[in-house]
Amino acid sequence: MPTHTVLFDAANAPVHVPTGTLLSEAARLAGIDINQPCGGQGRCGRCAVQVTTGAVRRRSSLRLSPEDVAMGYALACQTVVESNVAIHVPPQEKIERRLTTDRTVGEVQAPPGYDPATQQSLRRIPLTLKPPSMEDQTDDWSRLQTALRQATGRSEFDISLGLLRRMGGVLRSGDWQVTAILDAPPYDCCPDCPVRLIDLLPGHAPEPLPLWGAAIDIGTTTVSLWLADLRSGEVKAQVAEYNQQIRRGEDVISRIIFASKNGGDEELRMLVVDTINDLIEQACQRVQAQPADIYRATVTGNSTMIHLFLGIPASSIRLSPFVTALNDVPALTAAEIGLNLHPAATVDCLPGVASYVGADISAGVLASGLDDSEQVTLFMDVGTNGETVLGNNEWLVTCACSAGPAFEGAGVRDGMRATKGAIEEVWIDGHTCEPTCRVIGNIKPRGLCGSGLISLLAEMFITGVVDKGGHINTRLDTPRVRVGEHGAGPEYVIAWAAETAHGQDIVITHVDIDNLLRAKAAIYAGFTVMAESVGVPLEMVERVLIGGSFGKYINVEKAIQIGLLPDMPWDKFHFLGNTSVLGAYRALLDRSAHGRVQDIASRMTYIELSADNRFYEAFTSALFLPHTDLNKFPSVAG
Amino acid sequence: MPTHTVLFDAANAPVHVPTGTLLSEAARLAGIDINQPCGGQGRCGRCAVQVTTGAVRRRSSLRLSPEDVAMGYALACQTVVESNVAIHVPPQEKIERRLTTDRTVGEVQAPPGYDPATQQSLRRIPLTLKPPSMEDQTDDWSRLQTALRQATGRSEFDISLGLLRRMGGVLRSGDWQVTAILDAPPYDCCPDCPVRLIDLLPGHAPEPLPLWGAAIDIGTTTVSLWLADLRSGEVKAQVAEYNQQIRRGEDVISRIIFASKNGGDEELRMLVVDTINDLIEQACQRVQAQPADIYRATVTGNSTMIHLFLGIPASSIRLSPFVTALNDVPALTAAEIGLNLHPAATVDCLPGVASYVGADISAGVLASGLDDSEQVTLFMDVGTNGETVLGNNEWLVTCACSAGPAFEGAGVRDGMRATKGAIEEVWIDGHTCEPTCRVIGNIKPRGLCGSGLISLLAEMFITGVVDKGGHINTRLDTPRVRVGEHGAGPEYVIAWAAETAHGQDIVITHVDIDNLLRAKAAIYAGFTVMAESVGVPLEMVERVLIGGSFGKYINVEKAIQIGLLPDMPWDKFHFLGNTSVLGAYRALLDRSAHGRVQDIASRMTYIELSADNRFYEAFTSALFLPHTDLNKFPSVAG
Repeated sequence: MPTHTVLFDAANAPVHVPTGTLLSEAARLAGIDINQPCGGQGRCGRCAVQVTTGAVRRRSSLRLSPEDVAMGYALACQTVVESNVAIHVPPQEKIERRLTTDRTVGEVQAPPGYDPATQQSLRRIPLTLKPPSMEDQTDDWSRLQTALRQATGRSEFDISLGLLRRMGGVLRSGDWQVTAILDAPPYDCCPDCPVRLIDLLPGHAPEPLPLWGAAIDIGTTTVSLWLADLRSGEVKAQVAEYNQQIRRGEDVISRIIFASKNGGDEELRMLVVDTINDLIEQACQRVQAQPADIYRATVTGNSTMIHLFLGIPASSIRLSPFVTALNDVPALTAAEIGLNLHPAATVDCLPGVASYVGADISAGVLASGLDDSEQVTLFMDVGTNGETVLGNNEWLVTCACSAGPAFEGAGVRDGMRATKGAIEEVWIDGHTCEPTCRVIGNIKPRGLCGSGLISLLAEMFITGVVDKGGHINTRLDTPRVRVGEHGAGPEYVIAWAAETAHGQDIVITHVDIDNLLRAKAAIYAGFTVMAESVGVPLEMVERVLIGGSFGKYINVEKAIQIGLLPDMPWDKFHFLGNTSVLGAYRALLDRSAHGRVQDIASRMTYIELSADNRFYEAFTSALFLPHTDLNKFPSVAG
Repeated sequence: MPTHTVLFDAANAPVHVPTGTLLSEAARLAGIDINQPCGGQGRCGRCAVQVTTGAVRRRSSLRLSPEDVAMGYALACQTVVESNVAIHVPPQEKIERRLTTDRTVGEVQAPPGYDPATQQSLRRIPLTLKPPSMEDQTDDWSRLQTALRQATGRSEFDISLGLLRRMGGVLRSGDWQVTAILDAPPYDCCPDCPVRLIDLLPGHAPEPLPLWGAAIDIGTTTVSLWLADLRSGEVKAQVAEYNQQIRRGEDVISRIIFASKNGGDEELRMLVVDTINDLIEQACQRVQAQPADIYRATVTGNSTMIHLFLGIPASSIRLSPFVTALNDVPALTAAEIGLNLHPAATVDCLPGVASYVGADISAGVLASGLDDSEQVTLFMDVGTNGETVLGNNEWLVTCACSAGPAFEGAGVRDGMRATKGAIEEVWIDGHTCEPTCRVIGNIKPRGLCGSGLISLLAEMFITGVVDKGGHINTRLDTPRVRVGEHGAGPEYVIAWAAETAHGQDIVITHVDIDNLLRAKAAIYAGFTVMAESVGVPLEMVERVLIGGSFGKYINVEKAIQIGLLPDMPWDKFHFLGNTSVLGAYRALLDRSAHGRVQDIASRMTYIELSADNRFYEAFTSALFLPHTDLNKFPSVAG
């Protein structure tokens, strides 16, 4: 097959590829990063590049105008090379990484009554062995096991070949005083079940040394990590970052499609492993620890995220009959997965329920305590995938819908995560249309986080800056409303360049508002259709628990005003923050939690919305502020 | 530090090393193989090389004459570089590999009553799964486990991350008909103990397909492998080769010393793994199988061999108080060790007893049935390490001595393994001193195997070609006795060049005879001192079981004539062949065997001979033909 030269203006050197190679693939080979938020399906148009010389064949030019095509523009994910070509790559939208302290740091205390002796599976045990002699020629491993039996009361111990190779040296360099790091199996079937020896260190560790464990939530948009000292249970560092996979698809479906392409699965796996390893590094720097000091991790995330993280094909999740490869992952080690913890650290992925109700939701139910209460409770996890659980200690139903990443500050022009510099609340003067903002950290703003976007949208609606349909009123007499520069329709300026940290206007565009409307409509339609399908009217719901990475801070009134939350008395709402990472943290502390999450997972009945026409009707009706049917929102109608 | 150029005449290019580098290390870097049978201790003199230009410093010149040194000869393992040098490497003795069929092939039948259904832990199970549907969205792994539970009655299954990644594809490509390969854990502590899923293959395997397992004995000198079809238990291929480690030390002590040097441990590990992988390849070729079709292996060997094979430091075996890192190795996988079997194949190393009584001996006891009999039995494993066990079903004592590799045909000028072309029996005419030989395979001879050497030595002694002290009678009127060309004293020619397969004389030298005398004296001294130390006179011994790679074929009369075996009625002797690989084979077939070998290992009392002056006295007395004290050999004295 003939080979062609592809020269990207942003690359150092040309690449050589056979006829028929996609431009996106050639870019990958050239080390050029081209965003593919739709996963390379040719739907979003955001991978457009300009062919300056040479011949290509466009399989699709969706979202490109005839003028664009005339100017040489082509979708990188849909265009194949047919001769030597030169390509101009326009500047790519950046998923900016903002290494700032999370707002919630230091607020999580260990659960009351935490008792590591009975609850914690990880143990650090000082041992003093009798040295061998001509009278006692017992082999090293038997000698060590005897000491472990005396110290733990357990009978069987697993050891890896790598540790066997080091064992004799450690025993002797510690002069037969050593410290053992042990982890019990996730489920002990009997007292003879072997306990795993993770590491053996020479000498006795000084007592104040923390015993580190990490709770990790892999969100479609945001990855969160909490580092806890397992002796006290206290969380010592909390960090979060955008999931670097977002460049290869904004929702799970786009990611699965991207993963099913040549090498896509491995690329996505590396992107999320890199994201987590960066977070491990950050968290360790804050507490002056080394990644290899972390001996245990629990992981949650939706089913697609867990599959991609482990490198397990996720395509069956997307295709009827929508099954996962597995919901309950066996215990693994950090080295197997590529996480930068102690190589033998236990990595326990919590069990999920179904393709679209993953470990993040079962962990969220655990964290919320919903499964343990008599009250009929609606639990909502507001994230890229809007999952909802309804029930109590007797019954549980659950559903999921694709909300997109808008509430996590992604897929919105000036969106950002809820860290320092994020506008988290907005008030607009009804007469002047001038906004007032509250910014996390009381510094100059950089962008808007999810709660800021909800607040802003509600204020714009209440003051008439946008109408019921989400259209910006361009007839208003204010410089804040203007025609956008970015081809995204009219926009409203929340902060002028001079007032911002980065010296650029902070705006919300018509496209942003459209994304927010779709997100809130999907979530609202999800829980209303699910409640209806099990015959539970919303009035019967005694409390609403809201999780999500911004969940702790949103203003109920404003969330009702935009129609994200149902119109109920405010005292029924409780905000729990990121319940997924909270559930992972509970499981990190309590060895029985994995079993309880399994039990929750097995009790939940999954309601499939994708097969339900009522969902689409409810979604369409909810694409308004607050809703087509104002009877559903009497407080807002007032 | 200054760097020097070292140019070996046998190398393609010079290497550059800092001042003080050993010539043996520089040779390794240059890819030149220099034999170090003593492990680089400067004792054997066989690594001598000639420095033709440049300056070196000799730490030791043991075994070199002043004339040798004047000519530039130096011990590579004891000489360091001090300037640019050029080195002549004399031709190295080859440990020749003879790829011939072993004499014993096809003689091993499955033990009577072998029942794979109850005894075999490895299972190949055809499964037919119900495909997923919108009515049954069970995840793949749960679906597979349900089928496995129904087929096996077990409840828990372990699966690796690698197999999880392939599982969904296999289930679908087999259209939900698959074949599972399962192995039970070496010890089930309870019915809930997980069974390991080794592999999953699409479709149902045709019934006649064999189910392969390998039994491997890692001897210091010889490595043996039997390939068995676990459905019937039959051995389908038997192969053996010299352990390639022999180039780096002829006995375990030399190997441990070599391993303790920079990179020596990894070099020895690779050499034995390569040896085994060659044997796997050979065995597979004979039966038209692929190495990846082998799902289970059992391994025996002395403790040093097992340590070096697993890359576990063995130095504590050599140093007081002589302890191993471990006697009982956890179950491992082929991939962890580097064996070319199915990567997930179970590799079960049988348990040993002590530093100098390893798994080869406990496996040998298992194979011999000694532990199960009321008769007081002497069990001897005649190999590089002469281990002996004495006892019955009530008591067991054991000891070990270093015999050297002579009885395995190594360390003897024209020695070879007991394969085609090996002289296995010799008769000498008392008048003419002309020999008659029996050759394995009835072809022209290439050398002498262990039984041939014993036979030859006995005949030489009986006919007066050698005297009681092992000295060749140079006054005999025969061209067969001559002064050797190899600096190894007088020699006796067994076959002239014209009669041999390789066109060279086959001889036995004075040095060869000395090695044989030391080997037989060590073994004889070992069992006599052990029997004495537990107060059991040899007369009380009701039977003598002899194992060893040649053991099945030696002539009792001749072995008594040279004083290797005690002078007892011939009907007390039974030859069992290689009992170590036989024990490994039994354990390959019977899942309960590992536990029984553990039991044997825990019952054996180890008698340490190295600390016993009586051993040295007995050894010295036994360095004669048949012995200094002819009263011990009345039949020979007659």
